[in-house]
Amino acid sequence: MTVRVTVWSEFRQEHSDAAVAAVYPDGIHAAIAAGLGERTGFEVRTATLDEPDQGLTDEVLDATDVLTWWGHAAHDEVTDTVVDRVQARVLDGMGLIVLHSGHFSRIFKRLMGTSCDLKWREDGRPERLWVVDPSHPIAAGLGESFVLEAEEMYGEHFDIPRPDELVMVSWFAGGEVFRSVCTFRRGRGRIVYVRPGHETHPTYFDPNVRRLIANAAAWAAEPGGTRPAYGHRPAEPIG
Amino acid sequence: MTVRVTVWSEFRQEHSDAAVAAVYPDGIHAAIAAGLGERTGFEVRTATLDEPDQGLTDEVLDATDVLTWWGHAAHDEVTDTVVDRVQARVLDGMGLIVLHSGHFSRIFKRLMGTSCDLKWREDGRPERLWVVDPSHPIAAGLGESFVLEAEEMYGEHFDIPRPDELVMVSWFAGGEVFRSVCTFRRGRGRIVYVRPGHETHPTYFDPNVRRLIANAAAWAAEPGGTRPAYGHRPAEPIG
Amino acid sequence: MTVRVTVWSEFRQEHSDAAVAAVYPDGIHAAIAAGLGERTGFEVRTATLDEPDQGLTDEVLDATDVLTWWGHAAHDEVTDTVVDRVQARVLDGMGLIVLHSGHFSRIFKRLMGTSCDLKWREDGRPERLWVVDPSHPIAAGLGESFVLEAEEMYGEHFDIPRPDELVMVSWFAGGEVFRSVCTFRRGRGRIVYVRPGHETHPTYFDPNVRRLIANAAAWAAEPGGTRPAYGHRPAEPIG
Amino acid sequence: MTVRVTVWSEFRQEHSDAAVAAVYPDGIHAAIAAGLGERTGFEVRTATLDEPDQGLTDEVLDATDVLTWWGHAAHDEVTDTVVDRVQARVLDGMGLIVLHSGHFSRIFKRLMGTSCDLKWREDGRPERLWVVDPSHPIAAGLGESFVLEAEEMYGEHFDIPRPDELVMVSWFAGGEVFRSVCTFRRGRGRIVYVRPGHETHPTYFDPNVRRLIANAAAWAAEPGGTRPAYGHRPAEPIG
Repeated sequence: MTVRVTVWSEFRQEHSDAAVAAVYPDGIHAAIAAGLGERTGFEVRTATLDEPDQGLTDEVLDATDVLTWWGHAAHDEVTDTVVDRVQARVLDGMGLIVLHSGHFSRIFKRLMGTSCDLKWREDGRPERLWVVDPSHPIAAGLGESFVLEAEEMYGEHFDIPRPDELVMVSWFAGGEVFRSVCTFRRGRGRIVYVRPGHETHPTYFDPNVRRLIANAAAWAAEPGGTRPAYGHRPAEPIG
Repeated sequence: MTVRVTVWSEFRQEHSDAAVAAVYPDGIHAAIAAGLGERTGFEVRTATLDEPDQGLTDEVLDATDVLTWWGHAAHDEVTDTVVDRVQARVLDGMGLIVLHSGHFSRIFKRLMGTSCDLKWREDGRPERLWVVDPSHPIAAGLGESFVLEAEEMYGEHFDIPRPDELVMVSWFAGGEVFRSVCTFRRGRGRIVYVRPGHETHPTYFDPNVRRLIANAAAWAAEPGGTRPAYGHRPAEPIG
Repeated sequence: MTVRVTVWSEFRQEHSDAAVAAVYPDGIHAAIAAGLGERTGFEVRTATLDEPDQGLTDEVLDATDVLTWWGHAAHDEVTDTVVDRVQARVLDGMGLIVLHSGHFSRIFKRLMGTSCDLKWREDGRPERLWVVDPSHPIAAGLGESFVLEAEEMYGEHFDIPRPDELVMVSWFAGGEVFRSVCTFRRGRGRIVYVRPGHETHPTYFDPNVRRLIANAAAWAAEPGGTRPAYGHRPAEPIG
Repeated sequence: MTVRVTVWSEFRQEHSDAAVAAVYPDGIHAAIAAGLGERTGFEVRTATLDEPDQGLTDEVLDATDVLTWWGHAAHDEVTDTVVDRVQARVLDGMGLIVLHSGHFSRIFKRLMGTSCDLKWREDGRPERLWVVDPSHPIAAGLGESFVLEAEEMYGEHFDIPRPDELVMVSWFAGGEVFRSVCTFRRGRGRIVYVRPGHETHPTYFDPNVRRLIANAAAWAAEPGGTRPAYGHRPAEPIG
């Protein structure tokens, strides 16, 4: 079964910041989409903030099984309409992969109910991500751990609800740890937060990160049960 | 240590609906507060929707360790200011006990990130609540199960995030089940959802329900760890 | 990818009890295997207690991705060797589906660490199973609930560790509830407990139960991450 | 309410290994007990492997609300009788705090159902423990993190069931992370695993570790619900 993935990104800093453009000349979304395109069975499109309807029309979402979200500098520009629309889709079963600084996106905060705040430091030192749940499909093919030579540090406390599943934990050279790959269910939808991906590092070209994101998208795309009926339920005979 | 509980309620249907006034002549909040008042170590006050600032000023919340919330007909009247204020307090460590139709309150939906929808039927038949986690302090003194002779039915699917802890499950005479006592953490705060309490039944006079709510409030009041610092973290030597 | 399922059963009461033989003339395992055989992508074999090595040689387990387990009258006859062997396989990634009275099997108690005890009554009245997690693949195709016209009652408290995921909850006509479909991870393995299936009722011919068990087996077969290395870890440079 | 804590330890390496005796001349248990003795409301006794009945008679356990367990070199000497007895007490509501190398104790493996294996290295470098759940009472008074200047490294994967609650995560100087403070429920009992405490480091004299263990014991001592009845349940009228 084909999984239709829409890769959403702000696509702003690539224009305004030469350091970002140097790493991601075609945009962060292009690198993420290219990574997903390496996985058989995915049909990948991109969408960005400055497109009509911020790239996320009903038509786009009708054709989306899993949405990946990268944002950083323009979280507040995302409209209520788009946040409401994406939340409704997630509750109805769409998968959502929230990447790195997307922790502070309006849609992630909406779905979590918390501040989603954390500690950070742009020190460009190594991050090692460890698998803590080797039973999880999201961990497939990643080894026991992998290293990113240079990344931004994110440190605990990460103000999220208790994850349904904790798949990876990051170690940072400066002394911090972080719950880096976490899953959450909301309604019929499945959400994965994936930490790495600072805009000045070539993280989305890393083969392990690409595998991780593809695994997360495949997992989030798994279909669940029937859409529940809500509201008044008449009495009915049993058996 | 004294636990300061504020019992909030709409206090509307008691004026507009004779059936409600007959059961709760002094208001639902008065019955809930009286139940909590039976527990040693609680200092209980009430607050209602039509008071200034909807009863929830900063002064009130400054003196509140645990807030209980009953609402039904006027959820939409609760202002953004109050929802924001209560959410911030919960994230900072205040306990919150959401009662019955409070499942559809703005604050509960804000903290859950889901629709919080469910099935319902006002059939006034028995509900039996079963303890499924006998290790939990919220289950203390309730026996293995207890019966409410007449209640409104709430049925699954209940559209909440996966609870951190599931303490009780309800059986309804008409063939439904419901996750009736659930806990959630948000930030430093602890939330308990407690199902029973339809406005036309004397549920808040029931000794088991009173014990259950008092247990939930005591549990939600337990102090946790240090308030985390968020934002930029400078590099520092380790060890 | 083909999922190789081994359906294990005691296959004793079918010989000793006419009421069981009347419902399952070819054995309970035959009915379970026939149900799994309806699902594309499964390769199904059976194994029973009175076969050499209790049906579970290393050769059989080498060719098993998921093991289903039905036992009732002869739990204590299962040898340490077999229990040790199955536990080791689960920790190494084999799926395990524990059915009905298998709650009291040595292997389930070994993996849970609890008594796995419960309440029961053979009253042959209806059971209704409700989906409480519509995001879960195990719930696919089952509707919001389904009814078994006659089953044995199992009631809470069910003495298991807190499930990783609670997928279905049962309602019984006599006033009880039960956590009927639960998942657990142990090592790299995935375990699903599935409640229905008393030996005197034709439960394993029911289309919903067959779909449920097939969903559980498919879910338990999902491959996870790398086999971890344990023990001494030499110091190594990072990055 | 007084919490009666029994501090159990092998008390062997203190006799056989001069490096251990130098740090813990009166035994590891004495240091742990002294730490617990600093907390108001605890009544502390000790018990060791070479006492009659391995220190854990029914009389001792009758007077124990919480048992702490430190073992390392003699796990296999603990008898079936003692393991069965302690497991039964935990299921019935006794708290259990498993310390450091106790991860490999027979009682912990019995209650977990997994290998409880992990990576390790005796490098005596710093460990930093981070609170990841600031809503948890076990985190009270510990700050956001604390450092132990020299400890043995324990690294993931730690082969335990998914914890009910993950309270702290450790960072190690060599590049590893570890889920250091985890809770589990088994029956009516509450279990906390607390990582630090290698026998050649003065960890059990550290004020933060002492506070952590005392918090864990206080949490594990919280009384829960009624002791469930198991077995046949006769039909009874509802309501």
